[in-house]
Amino acid sequence: MIKRYVFGTPLETDAVLNKPAACRDKPPYLGKCENALIYKMDEEDIVYGLGENVRGMNKRGWIYESNCTDDPVHLEETKSLYGAHNFILVSGKKQFGLFLDTPGKVVFDIGYTNSSQLKIILEDGDYELYLIDGGTPDDIITWFRELIGSSYLPPKWAFGFGQSRWSYASSKEVRQVAARYRENHIPLDSIYLDIDYMERYKDFTIDREAFPDFEQLVEDMKQQGIHLIPIIDGGVKIEDGYDVYEEGVKNGFFCKDEDGDDFVVGVWPGKCHFPDMLDEKARAWFGDKYKFLLDKGIEGFWNDMNEPAIFYSEKRLKKVFEKLEEYRKMNLDVNTFFEFQDLVSTISKNPEDYRSFYHTYKGKRIRHDKVHNLFGYFMTRSAGEAFERLEPDKRILMFSRASYIGMHRYGGIWTGDNKSWWSHILLNLKMMPSLNMCGFLYSGADIGGFGADATQDLVMRWMALGIFMPLMRDHSARGTRRQEAYAFEDIEAFRGIIGLRYRLLPYLYSEFMKAALKNEMYARPLGFVWPEDRIARRVEDQLLIGESIMIAPVYEQNAVGRTVYLPEEMKLLRFHGQEVTEQRVLPAGHHFLEIPLEEVVLFIRKGCLLPLASGGENVEQVDWNQLKLYGFAEKGDSYELYDDDGVSPHVILEENLRRIVLK
Amino acid sequence: MIKRYVFGTPLETDAVLNKPAACRDKPPYLGKCENALIYKMDEEDIVYGLGENVRGMNKRGWIYESNCTDDPVHLEETKSLYGAHNFILVSGKKQFGLFLDTPGKVVFDIGYTNSSQLKIILEDGDYELYLIDGGTPDDIITWFRELIGSSYLPPKWAFGFGQSRWSYASSKEVRQVAARYRENHIPLDSIYLDIDYMERYKDFTIDREAFPDFEQLVEDMKQQGIHLIPIIDGGVKIEDGYDVYEEGVKNGFFCKDEDGDDFVVGVWPGKCHFPDMLDEKARAWFGDKYKFLLDKGIEGFWNDMNEPAIFYSEKRLKKVFEKLEEYRKMNLDVNTFFEFQDLVSTISKNPEDYRSFYHTYKGKRIRHDKVHNLFGYFMTRSAGEAFERLEPDKRILMFSRASYIGMHRYGGIWTGDNKSWWSHILLNLKMMPSLNMCGFLYSGADIGGFGADATQDLVMRWMALGIFMPLMRDHSARGTRRQEAYAFEDIEAFRGIIGLRYRLLPYLYSEFMKAALKNEMYARPLGFVWPEDRIARRVEDQLLIGESIMIAPVYEQNAVGRTVYLPEEMKLLRFHGQEVTEQRVLPAGHHFLEIPLEEVVLFIRKGCLLPLASGGENVEQVDWNQLKLYGFAEKGDSYELYDDDGVSPHVILEENLRRIVLK
Repeated sequence: MIKRYVFGTPLETDAVLNKPAACRDKPPYLGKCENALIYKMDEEDIVYGLGENVRGMNKRGWIYESNCTDDPVHLEETKSLYGAHNFILVSGKKQFGLFLDTPGKVVFDIGYTNSSQLKIILEDGDYELYLIDGGTPDDIITWFRELIGSSYLPPKWAFGFGQSRWSYASSKEVRQVAARYRENHIPLDSIYLDIDYMERYKDFTIDREAFPDFEQLVEDMKQQGIHLIPIIDGGVKIEDGYDVYEEGVKNGFFCKDEDGDDFVVGVWPGKCHFPDMLDEKARAWFGDKYKFLLDKGIEGFWNDMNEPAIFYSEKRLKKVFEKLEEYRKMNLDVNTFFEFQDLVSTISKNPEDYRSFYHTYKGKRIRHDKVHNLFGYFMTRSAGEAFERLEPDKRILMFSRASYIGMHRYGGIWTGDNKSWWSHILLNLKMMPSLNMCGFLYSGADIGGFGADATQDLVMRWMALGIFMPLMRDHSARGTRRQEAYAFEDIEAFRGIIGLRYRLLPYLYSEFMKAALKNEMYARPLGFVWPEDRIARRVEDQLLIGESIMIAPVYEQNAVGRTVYLPEEMKLLRFHGQEVTEQRVLPAGHHFLEIPLEEVVLFIRKGCLLPLASGGENVEQVDWNQLKLYGFAEKGDSYELYDDDGVSPHVILEENLRRIVLK
Repeated sequence: MIKRYVFGTPLETDAVLNKPAACRDKPPYLGKCENALIYKMDEEDIVYGLGENVRGMNKRGWIYESNCTDDPVHLEETKSLYGAHNFILVSGKKQFGLFLDTPGKVVFDIGYTNSSQLKIILEDGDYELYLIDGGTPDDIITWFRELIGSSYLPPKWAFGFGQSRWSYASSKEVRQVAARYRENHIPLDSIYLDIDYMERYKDFTIDREAFPDFEQLVEDMKQQGIHLIPIIDGGVKIEDGYDVYEEGVKNGFFCKDEDGDDFVVGVWPGKCHFPDMLDEKARAWFGDKYKFLLDKGIEGFWNDMNEPAIFYSEKRLKKVFEKLEEYRKMNLDVNTFFEFQDLVSTISKNPEDYRSFYHTYKGKRIRHDKVHNLFGYFMTRSAGEAFERLEPDKRILMFSRASYIGMHRYGGIWTGDNKSWWSHILLNLKMMPSLNMCGFLYSGADIGGFGADATQDLVMRWMALGIFMPLMRDHSARGTRRQEAYAFEDIEAFRGIIGLRYRLLPYLYSEFMKAALKNEMYARPLGFVWPEDRIARRVEDQLLIGESIMIAPVYEQNAVGRTVYLPEEMKLLRFHGQEVTEQRVLPAGHHFLEIPLEEVVLFIRKGCLLPLASGGENVEQVDWNQLKLYGFAEKGDSYELYDDDGVSPHVILEENLRRIVLK
């Protein structure tokens, strides 16, 4: 049951598609205290949700802020990452979901200040509250997802493995990466182009010195079954003669400062304007720009820097240098020294800057901070709506860094600039179901970690989790150690693990598409399935992937294995590389399993089947018709396989299902 | 067997007390390649050691640098913390210890670049290498510890619980803290004074506005059984009329710059000089200064900022402002903007500054970076040697932030500015045995975490580990949430857990003193005891504490318990608060145990006894003669209890042992 409550006069976010009539009574469960909603948590309550965030699947014990932030250091103490996902699900004696629909900042104090109190503090008194209850966690999620509309569908090839780096800076380097994968027979479906493919970081341009043969490169890669996926940034460079800039200025498509001038910020290209993604006309205009690359054969994009990130604003920089001039004349004591360091370190993403520019939203001028969390969403919407016009019969790959619920209809997300840390393998795992709840199904983390230096064992263990994520991409930052699958000693092990992804593809794609089309979870916490099992409810390092399997990756360095909890009898399937080397039924309970670096184990649920293809070096090579069935099943048990052409955006679930029966 | 190898003409560090004659043959096991030593690791080798460092007890899979660093953000990617502990122990088919005795930087690439290669890179070609083999890990540690001399002995009261904060800034506040502990009957033995007790951060001064009655405060606290423990910093404020400054200048006791002038750095007091701790005369002079506080009844200190930390050097600041003036005139592009931000963020602890001042060491002028890792060690030695002169019959509490092997004879360490992160509970556990190997027995981490905000559950779980650490102190930073044991909701739970520490004291003190006097480990990895057990060898979240018990704390938020591995049959002892509520023999293997927040479990080894006192609100109240024996033992099994007056620095092991036999 879904109830909608309206407080004040909220701004429309277009997150919800079909709004039920607003209730006039008070919402159940919740108390209200000034600008906060309060719920007294039972000791056994688990609080799920909040999409992209740090800490556990169970969010209890921290304070989170929905405030899209470009922060590349994701720590336990971090309060905001790139997305703002205001949905939580309380699961205990009472079970209900809450969605706070407001584009401004929301604070979720989930037992931080008081361990038994959930307090949701709304900066803005104008918001809509959706309360969903009367069912299981799975029901509540499905009802919520029906409310916010179907999740984005990527093309089938986007379920292949992708290799990224900030940056493959030339045509030559891209060709080398492709060659290394192909000559080592490590499967690959895409290579990502980070900011350096552009001419001076200008959106919708090509650096013709580094990529003189861009169109040919796209074509040659396609011949090898590899898609090139360029990045698009949120800011447009100020440069005379640059068409995007000039058109934007001429048509008034950029965000304005207080005086009505185009707002100036510094991001990658240097001084930039932000396209006003919230303005319908500007959005349509910006979306059409993707055509520049679509016309060159590009079929996928990633939208970045759209929190929007601000390295500096022109005005702040001016003020800072005036202040520095004062410091220069002073004999700094230690406090003034810290003040000075602080002044410089807070130039970037300064809250004051977010309060100093304006959008035109649904015909009204509105200050950015009031709608901050919509920027990345509307940038991706801009692209998504354009793709519907420009490529009506084709799924275009699209994922974004910043997001808000609603954006899940237009693209997936990656979880931003993580690090080559073991703890971030686990964070990757924990975030997946939280994202699924909020509609983000096509998502994944940068495998191997973006910042910091990786080691072979870290990347290998991370891959062994990554093969189960819809978006499987290895990405790393400038200046860090190379972490392509061929960059380490044991190439065979990488070939095996990534190869296994391709054996799993029919199952993973099938489960993904069913979850998307039925508004269900792709990756589920164990507590969703075994709510009465005290231990299962608290498991934070295992996941159910689709209906048939449970995963339990190793995420500790130098571990020879790990303890796995089975809420019920399951069948272990062990892979050495792509080959099944062990099948064994394990009873319910805890089991310590040795899992060498180059191996992957998974667990098949009773009565379930897992179809495996024979593999391939890209998605196209995978033969969906030659499936081998593994299962913890009896004759007559079956699996419902979804398949389609992988391209058409208009699919009907029932038309693409076929039942595979164990004979 | 210990072999000593001399390369070049190394500087003496005084780490080793009785040097064996130097070998002329080549060291076994190791290859040599330019300035590096190389060992090919077997797949099953575990590499222990390196004292204070991030990552596992098994250090494989990362690159570490011995380079004492003031870095308050301890991440997986961190390479250096505050200490430089160049000892490793390879444990596998071959077993040997290596100590690289050199005061400069040493890099340990332990399977980072190549997963099977250990590479030790020495910045300086002049060093001594000690190779210890021919025994078990325990043997190797004992032989190494005999080589470097007996570990520092703290007074018995220092095994009580201590409360700290940056800062309790007035006499009144200190009295309030004491009162809150006493009125809540939460045991407490000490309150720490951070930098604000001093007058403008000047060592060996008292801020008489905030602490007008300092002497009376010390006395009043003592009446309550509470010791005040002031901090001493590594830098001396430049201020006319300040005796320490003036004496230092007059006698030439400060470090010099290139021109022979006293080197100027900015740290807490603003502009400072560093006392030349390496110079024998300066060291004796600085040590005598502790008398100022000893005379006021103070019996313990912590030495801080002695890496030494440098916020800025006078010369660098000048250069930076000149450069900033250039930037001001420029129209910054994004690269120049980052250059500008970087310039400011690298002012502190800049490597160039460490290359621009000089010591007089054993009669010779030597540039700081060549002896960098000795500064904190020699500052603490300065105090330790002074205490021998000033208080020959009394143990004075002393622990330091920076350290090098050798310092363990003069004081303990705390592990510096950690964070209120769950991962830092585990880091605390993992570091303990590594520190013990290097002679640092009296040590501990800031319970509850220094930086960032804590939650009740975090502090409670951390306390449940902290009660087993020799140094048990709750400490937190300015601006963070208060985390005293009375600051949260469930004071009773804190009273129970901390109370349990006092029940355990006779055992913990006995095991500590035996370990110190016999050159053994206090906290041991499971692999030391069960080297043939593949699983035990890889356990990174359990410890043996002394001869009788194993601990397995919970370190995950919202967990209802954890899996524990028992290499052999053991008896579980469960405490709810101070009371034993469960005793149960568990068979060898993995066990999932529910462990609520307010409970502590430990495991008694077969044939072992655990004597428990009845508790107390400070160490003095604990009755060593009324012990209750718990054990997994039969009639006739016994425990050898060490006890002494807790004060005398000159103790003889055998004189203070008594055997308790189970009747």
